Amino acid sequence: MASSTEVLKRLLVGRPFRSDQSKPAALPKRIALPVFASDPLSSVAYAPAQILMAVSAAGGAAFVYAPWAAAAVVVVLLVVVASYRQLIRAYPSGGGDYEVATTNLGQAGGLLVASALLVDYMLTVAVSVAAAVDNLGAMVPVVTSHRTAFAVAVVALLVAVNLRGVRQQGLVFAVPTYAFLAAMVALVGWGLFRVLGRDEPLRAASAELDVSGIEIGGGLTGFALVFLLLRALASGSVTLTGMQTLANQVPSFRPPKSRNAASALLTVGLISGALLLATVWLARLTEVQYVERPRTQIAGATPDYVQAPVTAQLAQTVFGDATLGFFLVLAATTLVLVFAANTTFDGFPVLGAMLASDRYLPRQLHTRGDRLAFSNGVLVLGAGATLLVMVFRADVVQLIHLYIVGVFVAFTFSQVGMVRHWNRALATERDPVARLAMKRSRAINFAGAVLTGVVLAVILVAKFNRGAWISIVVMAVMYLLMRAIRQHYDHVARELTPLEQRPVLPARNHAVVLVSQLHMPTMRALAYARATRPDTLTAVTVNVDSTDTRLLVSEWEGRGLDVPLTVIDSPYREITRPVMEYVKSVRRSSPRDVVTVFIPQYVVGHWWEQLLHNQSALRLKTRLQFIPGVMVTSVPWQLASSTGKGGTDRMIRGPRGSGSRPDFEREPET
Amino acid sequence: MASSTEVLKRLLVGRPFRSDQSKPAALPKRIALPVFASDPLSSVAYAPAQILMAVSAAGGAAFVYAPWAAAAVVVVLLVVVASYRQLIRAYPSGGGDYEVATTNLGQAGGLLVASALLVDYMLTVAVSVAAAVDNLGAMVPVVTSHRTAFAVAVVALLVAVNLRGVRQQGLVFAVPTYAFLAAMVALVGWGLFRVLGRDEPLRAASAELDVSGIEIGGGLTGFALVFLLLRALASGSVTLTGMQTLANQVPSFRPPKSRNAASALLTVGLISGALLLATVWLARLTEVQYVERPRTQIAGATPDYVQAPVTAQLAQTVFGDATLGFFLVLAATTLVLVFAANTTFDGFPVLGAMLASDRYLPRQLHTRGDRLAFSNGVLVLGAGATLLVMVFRADVVQLIHLYIVGVFVAFTFSQVGMVRHWNRALATERDPVARLAMKRSRAINFAGAVLTGVVLAVILVAKFNRGAWISIVVMAVMYLLMRAIRQHYDHVARELTPLEQRPVLPARNHAVVLVSQLHMPTMRALAYARATRPDTLTAVTVNVDSTDTRLLVSEWEGRGLDVPLTVIDSPYREITRPVMEYVKSVRRSSPRDVVTVFIPQYVVGHWWEQLLHNQSALRLKTRLQFIPGVMVTSVPWQLASSTGKGGTDRMIRGPRGSGSRPDFEREPET
Repeated sequence: MASSTEVLKRLLVGRPFRSDQSKPAALPKRIALPVFASDPLSSVAYAPAQILMAVSAAGGAAFVYAPWAAAAVVVVLLVVVASYRQLIRAYPSGGGDYEVATTNLGQAGGLLVASALLVDYMLTVAVSVAAAVDNLGAMVPVVTSHRTAFAVAVVALLVAVNLRGVRQQGLVFAVPTYAFLAAMVALVGWGLFRVLGRDEPLRAASAELDVSGIEIGGGLTGFALVFLLLRALASGSVTLTGMQTLANQVPSFRPPKSRNAASALLTVGLISGALLLATVWLARLTEVQYVERPRTQIAGATPDYVQAPVTAQLAQTVFGDATLGFFLVLAATTLVLVFAANTTFDGFPVLGAMLASDRYLPRQLHTRGDRLAFSNGVLVLGAGATLLVMVFRADVVQLIHLYIVGVFVAFTFSQVGMVRHWNRALATERDPVARLAMKRSRAINFAGAVLTGVVLAVILVAKFNRGAWISIVVMAVMYLLMRAIRQHYDHVARELTPLEQRPVLPARNHAVVLVSQLHMPTMRALAYARATRPDTLTAVTVNVDSTDTRLLVSEWEGRGLDVPLTVIDSPYREITRPVMEYVKSVRRSSPRDVVTVFIPQYVVGHWWEQLLHNQSALRLKTRLQFIPGVMVTSVPWQLASSTGKGGTDRMIRGPRGSGSRPDFEREPET
Repeated sequence: MASSTEVLKRLLVGRPFRSDQSKPAALPKRIALPVFASDPLSSVAYAPAQILMAVSAAGGAAFVYAPWAAAAVVVVLLVVVASYRQLIRAYPSGGGDYEVATTNLGQAGGLLVASALLVDYMLTVAVSVAAAVDNLGAMVPVVTSHRTAFAVAVVALLVAVNLRGVRQQGLVFAVPTYAFLAAMVALVGWGLFRVLGRDEPLRAASAELDVSGIEIGGGLTGFALVFLLLRALASGSVTLTGMQTLANQVPSFRPPKSRNAASALLTVGLISGALLLATVWLARLTEVQYVERPRTQIAGATPDYVQAPVTAQLAQTVFGDATLGFFLVLAATTLVLVFAANTTFDGFPVLGAMLASDRYLPRQLHTRGDRLAFSNGVLVLGAGATLLVMVFRADVVQLIHLYIVGVFVAFTFSQVGMVRHWNRALATERDPVARLAMKRSRAINFAGAVLTGVVLAVILVAKFNRGAWISIVVMAVMYLLMRAIRQHYDHVARELTPLEQRPVLPARNHAVVLVSQLHMPTMRALAYARATRPDTLTAVTVNVDSTDTRLLVSEWEGRGLDVPLTVIDSPYREITRPVMEYVKSVRRSSPRDVVTVFIPQYVVGHWWEQLLHNQSALRLKTRLQFIPGVMVTSVPWQLASSTGKGGTDRMIRGPRGSGSRPDFEREPET
């Protein structure tokens, strides 16, 4: 039974899991938190560079504003955390933003958020993997010169792992997060202690660079400064990505699920904020410089100049180049980024399956694979991320321009949805204590909606030309596509709904047996057609080669078969069209009848055997399906080479010369 | 009805021809000769270079031996012409070498010759097109630097033209041959007249080159000289290629067909021989030098040094560079070479169809396309020639090493076959005059067999390492493949032969209706299954998602359908395997029964709609065919989007609320 593709699949994916295989147990907070926090926390690895880059547009002197931009980001972060804590309590089922938007803003809102999330999940994978490759490249330079190839390989690895459907979300998944936290705390703590506590004059290597501005010229005053800070805020907002992950994972926490998830969210938010602030501050103190366009902004930079990631620069400054500390920080950062990408392979397929189950996406996304994962979703995510990585050559900066739009679209709409949610709840709630809590929640979500909306507007203005428009176009296409798919499914469902009156099957059934040669399959088809007791029975052959046809007719007559043989002419040597026209003519003479076309076929075992025989039967079957009122019956005849491909037992014919009377000669009992 | 692929096909290929469309009239000799002679005559365009190259191995001084080698080639040529005149008279049907070898040497001999011819037809196209590109390149240098691309384009053009099935083998096809003849006669005649008649000191530009030998060292004496001449003979034998074309085209001549064809062959042979001798002689007189390895043999040659074809060098010397005469000679040569390749597109598909009709090749090669050409043969030839051109980068020299082996294999075997033919004929013939003629013919064919056999041996020795081994390997593979194909077809035919006893169809027929949802297609399938009056009728559903299954079962019960619904469990969420096992179990309980599986399907009109629905039905149908005693009936339900794809009329249901009683509720009349 096992074909070679089957063997390959087993090797890659492993043995299939039974549907009733037990789901993983709910996780205690000390495990759940790190498992789901790799995504939100890991953004601290690339957010500081975004802030430094944004301010660098005003030249080297502007780095002094970086900590202020970081502080603004942290404010937004904390408001969003507060908002999501309300969301988690109100919608503990794990549907997240999509559920909130659909419930409170209707189909359009839900689809809009879903489009944003689908695009963002792909970008999460692309950005995390690209950043991981950056950090790995700071340790192993060969990786940097083959960044795209390495990034694609990591995505492929993640796809393979997730097709195997790793279910043990245990300690293994907690390790990278804890390691990253430990490494960052050690790095930032030791760094700040050396600079502030021991007054050591630590200076990053990049402090020596001569950085000039772009766009914005010399002095930063008034409007220009505000714009610079807003742009830095827009860039730094990438810190907030991944916060939604926790909102989708409420069901994985131990009860009280909502409260545990909410407190985990707060913890992660506080840690992220603190780390971001401390990192940017330390970068400022050690005068790390990180610019948007190294080749034009840095005086004397060679075309192949590569800026080391900020974490790498800090680790180099604090611990020294090529020290154990340096490697540990970079290794932990690489690892947590890969695991953040991996978390997305949980979220995307689940969202895809939800959308498929709501009939907005092809239903194949709702099929669980051999290992119970939504395999098709995993494959789609992998393909999308690979495409992004290849198109943008694993460039974190460019990918991030695309990334944050979607994140803030989802933030804003789900917070607006939450405001609506509380409005509705307040309309029916009478208990004053509960009303007070609701009003408080509403205020928080309102603040969240306003703030995220403002940031979204800033992002749109600051990033539109730099790639954000691509995200917006893709989101719009996704939105329209999902609506079209839903319309198609609805349409089909309406057409297929059984009417109260059952379908009337015409009383008369015309059997047509297609004959090319007078061989065993034909004989069997004739016998079987007779056995279904049709009202009329005709054998039909297409005259492609008149010599062959004459031979067939004379053989037919010689055998004295009592079924009439109709010869259809085919001046252009086609088979499908004349048969189609013949079948239609049979129906036209009595349109309420049914025509059953019997196609004798012999079955060979190997694909190369298949090559030696005409494929006209398959094409004919496909085309006949389009004629209403026509049934197509394949009468297969298994050749010796086909055994073992499907059946274990060979066709058993009646013993030769036994007393049994062949059906073929039996007249229909009318 | 017209799909986009249909429209594209019509644009490329044109309107289809009716099978009874009249065949082209037989041709008078003055047209037939040039039409079929482009192949044998055009070899004069590249044969002189081969002879010069072969002698160049002994250094520049050895060019003096070139005319002697050419004379030897002409002797072989004349003997082969005489031999083929016998063949044409004995086998006027146009079967050529394949027919002669099969009739007289049996299956193995016929197949061997067929393998050689198939390989050679591909090489004829490749060599002719490559040589055409060479000559074109001598006029338009850009062609030389993109030789492979140009050659591939010419092959593609030839495929397109021949798929359109150009039937008018008229004057158009005679023009290039006559133009080539006129150009060559003018070139050689004027050249010889200038040198010999007017004693002008014409010297080719390449006469100035300092040519050194390879392999063979200094003085040429005894064995070395013989070996050199034999090698030159082997190379020059390429002149003989294409002689077989005329033997295959006997039916195209006007009666008396054989005699006209035989005299045409003689004419072509004499012209070829004379042209070859004159060309090589003129090349010698003007001291044209043409070597095998320009980079090593020519002192001071740059790596990108290109030798102009011998015709181009002669035209340059005789008429002067860039004169009208120069361009006319090269244009005529290019044209005749392209038409020579085109002639092959007649021969290969006909041979392929003959082999397919003898069941040595897939039967698709015997199908005539829309324009009555054997389209699949044309495509296979085009693909083979393209591959050769690409692998050998349109290098005439390398391709010729592969080429002549097959030609001489076919020559030798068909001459041996002819000797056998005369032996057999002599065994029964009693008329002394006829016997004398036969003995004369046998002597000629015997001489032909011996001489071509010797040349074949020389070719094998001289060319084996230079690429002839590739031809031999390909021929051996073709031979084995054709034998295997014949065995497969014979095997299938044996299995399919109807026995005297007709196939016993078991009396009991178990109907199994596959159900996934309770929609219109299912309802119709149930009704139709009931109408075929099976002995048992069961509906079967596969439990992939237990929620869906529970819904289906309750709906089923709610509707009060009187067909039992069997739920098959599928712990691993498969559909095909559980259904296969269920069907097998039904058969196992009474192996002599038949199981009919009814598959309700809805038909959508567009491929992109198809993407939105599961493809499990198709896979299931394919796999079910492998179980003996199982019939598969598709019960299609056409959705609105499918109309216009096949049927013009929509499914007509009974008028709602009419008195007609749905079949579904009718009990079988037993």
